[in-house]
Amino acid sequence: MKYWQVEDMIKIAILGLGTVGTGVAKVVAENHRQIERKLGEPLEVKAILVRHFKDGPYRQLMTDDFSQIEEDPEIRVVVETIGGMEAAYEYTKRALETGKHVVTANKQLVSERGWELLRLAKKKNVNYLFEASVGGGIPVIHPLTQCMVANRIDEIYGILNGTTNYILTRMVRTGAFFSDALREAQAKGYAEADPSADVNGIDAGRKICILADLAFGQQVDPDSISVEGISKLSLRDVKVAARAGYRIKLLGRALRMPGGGRTAYVAPHLVPEDHPLANVEDVYNAVVIRGNATGDVLFYGKGAGELPTASACVSDVIEAMQRSAKREEAGWNGDTDGFVDPLEAATRFYFRIEGSLTDAAMAFGQVEVLSEDGETGFLTDRITGREAREHSRSLNVLSCLRVLE
Amino acid sequence: MKYWQVEDMIKIAILGLGTVGTGVAKVVAENHRQIERKLGEPLEVKAILVRHFKDGPYRQLMTDDFSQIEEDPEIRVVVETIGGMEAAYEYTKRALETGKHVVTANKQLVSERGWELLRLAKKKNVNYLFEASVGGGIPVIHPLTQCMVANRIDEIYGILNGTTNYILTRMVRTGAFFSDALREAQAKGYAEADPSADVNGIDAGRKICILADLAFGQQVDPDSISVEGISKLSLRDVKVAARAGYRIKLLGRALRMPGGGRTAYVAPHLVPEDHPLANVEDVYNAVVIRGNATGDVLFYGKGAGELPTASACVSDVIEAMQRSAKREEAGWNGDTDGFVDPLEAATRFYFRIEGSLTDAAMAFGQVEVLSEDGETGFLTDRITGREAREHSRSLNVLSCLRVLE
Repeated sequence: MKYWQVEDMIKIAILGLGTVGTGVAKVVAENHRQIERKLGEPLEVKAILVRHFKDGPYRQLMTDDFSQIEEDPEIRVVVETIGGMEAAYEYTKRALETGKHVVTANKQLVSERGWELLRLAKKKNVNYLFEASVGGGIPVIHPLTQCMVANRIDEIYGILNGTTNYILTRMVRTGAFFSDALREAQAKGYAEADPSADVNGIDAGRKICILADLAFGQQVDPDSISVEGISKLSLRDVKVAARAGYRIKLLGRALRMPGGGRTAYVAPHLVPEDHPLANVEDVYNAVVIRGNATGDVLFYGKGAGELPTASACVSDVIEAMQRSAKREEAGWNGDTDGFVDPLEAATRFYFRIEGSLTDAAMAFGQVEVLSEDGETGFLTDRITGREAREHSRSLNVLSCLRVLE
Repeated sequence: MKYWQVEDMIKIAILGLGTVGTGVAKVVAENHRQIERKLGEPLEVKAILVRHFKDGPYRQLMTDDFSQIEEDPEIRVVVETIGGMEAAYEYTKRALETGKHVVTANKQLVSERGWELLRLAKKKNVNYLFEASVGGGIPVIHPLTQCMVANRIDEIYGILNGTTNYILTRMVRTGAFFSDALREAQAKGYAEADPSADVNGIDAGRKICILADLAFGQQVDPDSISVEGISKLSLRDVKVAARAGYRIKLLGRALRMPGGGRTAYVAPHLVPEDHPLANVEDVYNAVVIRGNATGDVLFYGKGAGELPTASACVSDVIEAMQRSAKREEAGWNGDTDGFVDPLEAATRFYFRIEGSLTDAAMAFGQVEVLSEDGETGFLTDRITGREAREHSRSLNVLSCLRVLE
């Protein structure tokens, strides 16, 4: 009886045993009952690819040779948690080529090569699923590509990076400087030793590209979007914004443009404090998807962390085993045509200048003053990024941020 | 060429041409491009079942004879938007029996007979899908049953009825009486002429039952849960709560109980004003799902209305056409064992009594005073509903509400 049960399991491999990989092994063990109820069969981790063997509960499952996984016909799904490009890209391709489903949280790989890997998966009649690549444990990709599929998606925006949101929350709540808030985030394990991909907006950029790819059906290259982080953000702006009823949040934004193009960018925004995103604090993430039938739908939760992200991977493993081969994949094509420079996206802009209200008005016409104390903080009317840049040429600009309407 | 295209369409029927039914026809027409991109084929409404013929854009599609739809092999999916039980139940069964997929927004039918209809659908190798029955256009059911499937779900709660949330928002914002706010909601089309199912919490009760069914895998009968609406809510409580930092919201709540049972109920709650649900206003809905791996995930958007609800139905039509036959349905069994009386669910309680603080303290021990002006408003410690009832026997209770923690 025991023997029969073991044979009747669905077996998977995990590539990498970092935070997410370890979480996947934990979720498979801890929630085996829920998983079996849904799958109809137990799920078992058969192998874990590591670079260096180390002791611990998973020692017996470890291998440092991918071909052992590749050549094992019992392994039906590979969960890639290596991250980055080279090895992750190679192993994903090889796994798909041998007819295994691949599940991942790797936003860099999906944002750069997702369309190609989806095409390969389709050719091989397997699935390439990546719910965990955006929003960690928050369901975003399936709701977008499945539940809202009868909509024309006009816009997606959100707080896509927990590290920067934690830092901004500390700056707003306690008046901490960016550098101190960053150190605090590192001490709490919310920021990595090298935090540059987070604080410079690169991580959020990859995520908004994936959402834009899915929403608009064409590749948006992470290299082509404009990405601005929070490392240059001044505490002065946080305070001016707060007094005027705004919180500063780092937003990724993807837009269907008038005329049919599309654009995407990452930048800090002034968010009105009664907007649902204004109250998304600490390491939480939130994404707003605007469909032409649903209106705005918001998804909110823990955007990172071992167990939330891992549970999204394991749910995708279950999905991979059950998804129909005839389903049209939530794919997109590699054609980047029709991408519009994000400078063409119009919003109101916040400026802080070393200069007077008269200087501001001469550059922008009518403005809304937020602060006047040696420096002048003000909001423009709705203009494009290009106009904001051109009109401010004659000003001594200390800060320039977009405003979410 | 034209002829070939017409033949290569996926054809559906709509039952009923009320708000949702009309919306389905509109979404199919307006978003045909998105739908075809996903389906790989165009989608066409071939027939609409009505009780009485009427003129309009859909006149040529109308029939008053269900057997015409039932016997038409070209019709692959039936969208049931009749609502209620009798006809909806009968036609759903007949459609499934003849091997057609059925999609619905009918929360009454799903909450009372969903498990049975899912079983029939499985037997017939077709799908019975009802994303639109909870949260209108907000994706909730698929995220719960699919994206969060690797979680043990411990709790679900939320604002599930837009009409009552609109009324409560007016009471809080403008100090309107319940009766005036209700009339205003009716004037704006947010409340029906007979608003009882909404204001008495019955609609929210059906929705929380569906969520509980899916989360816990067993039937929760709408008759077995306790349901309290907002019709007896006093403006006085709204004001006392507001001064103490709470908003009053009608919540549906489903809980995994200590010891393995499960319960569900609908009742007005005091919600702390920094809780994400506190700022869900007007006709918006929001649902929080607590998974043991993801933590709390929140879904927010328009919970009702013609186009949001219809777009969820159309997305389910697409899903039905693409879903694998071997997928384990998001079903539950009809066994109601293990349902625990919601009186056993523990929360803090808010009381307003005609009596003094001494009276309150004699009944409940230590309490947190919210108001003392002839009447006394106070919060208890965390107790069960049964304890709240027993300990308050000696008091002259004007109001008793649960508190969301």
